[in-house]
Amino acid sequence: MQVSTRTDISPVEQLHALVAADMRATDVLIHERLSSAVALIPDLAKHLIDSGGKRLRPLLTLAAAQVGGYHGAHHIKLAAAVEFIHTATLLHDDVVDDSALRRGKVSANIVWGNKASVLVGDFLFSRAFELMVETDELKVLGILSHASAVISEGEVMQLKSSGNLQASEDHYLRVVSAKTAELFAAAAEAGAVIAGGEHAKALRAYGQNLGIAFQLVDDALDYSGRQALMGKAVGDDFREGKVTLPVILAVARADEAALKFWKKTIEMGTQGEADLDRAITLVEQTGAIADTMERARGYAGLACRALETLPESKIRDVLAAVADFCVARAY
Amino acid sequence: MQVSTRTDISPVEQLHALVAADMRATDVLIHERLSSAVALIPDLAKHLIDSGGKRLRPLLTLAAAQVGGYHGAHHIKLAAAVEFIHTATLLHDDVVDDSALRRGKVSANIVWGNKASVLVGDFLFSRAFELMVETDELKVLGILSHASAVISEGEVMQLKSSGNLQASEDHYLRVVSAKTAELFAAAAEAGAVIAGGEHAKALRAYGQNLGIAFQLVDDALDYSGRQALMGKAVGDDFREGKVTLPVILAVARADEAALKFWKKTIEMGTQGEADLDRAITLVEQTGAIADTMERARGYAGLACRALETLPESKIRDVLAAVADFCVARAY
Repeated sequence: MQVSTRTDISPVEQLHALVAADMRATDVLIHERLSSAVALIPDLAKHLIDSGGKRLRPLLTLAAAQVGGYHGAHHIKLAAAVEFIHTATLLHDDVVDDSALRRGKVSANIVWGNKASVLVGDFLFSRAFELMVETDELKVLGILSHASAVISEGEVMQLKSSGNLQASEDHYLRVVSAKTAELFAAAAEAGAVIAGGEHAKALRAYGQNLGIAFQLVDDALDYSGRQALMGKAVGDDFREGKVTLPVILAVARADEAALKFWKKTIEMGTQGEADLDRAITLVEQTGAIADTMERARGYAGLACRALETLPESKIRDVLAAVADFCVARAY
Repeated sequence: MQVSTRTDISPVEQLHALVAADMRATDVLIHERLSSAVALIPDLAKHLIDSGGKRLRPLLTLAAAQVGGYHGAHHIKLAAAVEFIHTATLLHDDVVDDSALRRGKVSANIVWGNKASVLVGDFLFSRAFELMVETDELKVLGILSHASAVISEGEVMQLKSSGNLQASEDHYLRVVSAKTAELFAAAAEAGAVIAGGEHAKALRAYGQNLGIAFQLVDDALDYSGRQALMGKAVGDDFREGKVTLPVILAVARADEAALKFWKKTIEMGTQGEADLDRAITLVEQTGAIADTMERARGYAGLACRALETLPESKIRDVLAAVADFCVARAY
């Protein structure tokens, strides 16, 4: 697909520009609905929501509504709901992962404690459903409540396979599809459904494949020094014993010494000071990072392919460019 | 209100008997919808759901639907959704409170860890919304998503006022109304709404006041030896520094030595071995327990009063008896 767009701003920024007014309205609504008589709730939620996230998921909702020629106002509520669900899962994730850093800031669980993070996550999740009820669209409520259940299934799968070097690439992809790609898919699908549903299947497939590509790149970056530039702690996955694709591939190609290293650091969770550096060297040398990126490119390609049934338009081209960019950001 | 019901079984059991077939169907549905390809989810959820809870909240939904003469099948889904929301909040509560015991069993966070409890809570919450979507009733989705937001606000309020001896009785009642009574109110209201809505306001008021009475009794029992008989750890609230009504009243009536004791144990959280016994003695001697129970009786009375606009029926009488019983259980 030929993309004839400005090259001085990234495709994600171009997509933002195409739905700029809607995104501003979404941001206003997000801040309105954060409000609560209990001040800790907006304080904690804003800490995360205003921390410079790219609003990728609500962006997909707004873009999908635009693709479908939607002229109502409910897509704003839907986009805000999608961002609330995403923020709730991030808050709970950081509790589950004992994370200390999120988007370059100290994470909410460190500032306010795990307990507050769990409860404010619940609040945002409930608010998301309140917003969706206001759209009067039972179908999008069905899509997003199902997505939320799938996301937590994915998180539990990941929790269970933590430290398990026997985890297969297939298992990993099921986790990623559930915990990350499902919300991308549902966000795009819901935007399409609210616009009449014509391109719902295509946009869902786009979101699903984009989400997988996005997570693959994230997992590759966790073993890269570039991660530090993006405001995330380097080596988080390694320290938490997460068996991501770079590890799965590196283990499959490991010699005896390397296998011993992975068993000690991931399976038994015994990590010394130099171990992250050695892990980075191993995933690089075995080609595990390159192959993870190769697979990411494959899914980005599938995302672009899913757009082919859509009518030609600027926004379709930018969506395709976003998929390519999501992989390119790692270089 | 004169109650002419069997006295050999408790009013809660009588209510169960009146909606027995519906409750059996609800239980079947609950177990069906717990299922997941990720085995840890039903394992953890069943641990709590099958632990002998009284199903009070879904009972209110089913009873309210019966009061309204409902003849459809959606009330079963609604009742299951209500129990899922309740179970999700219990799982998250136990994480927030570091509880070790729930309904006489080791709590799920101890068996499976806090992380799994957070995620399975999220799963159940999502499943609740999926079930509600299937009822095709946007209004009940609105009621229960709003209730869920209010519940988490109440939990955050409680978390924030932990250890604060300045907390007022008014503040306490706002916490209780939100964290406990809101779900009782919403469960009853939703059942009425699905049946056409005629008695929605009255049944909501009944649930609200019953919920407050219920929590007041719970908080009084936490300073009573009888608590141990009910499968809950005695003195949980005291150990967690929760400023419940018995403490608020005892502090207001404290002499200098007692005030010093409350500051040390609740405000500063320094507790020795004999402190729970002393706390129990203080709340008893100051009449704080008796007055907490007196207030509970007041709210139970309001719950009964709310039923007066309902047509005379067996189920109305049993609902009134449930309110009285909820207070009487403490003696």
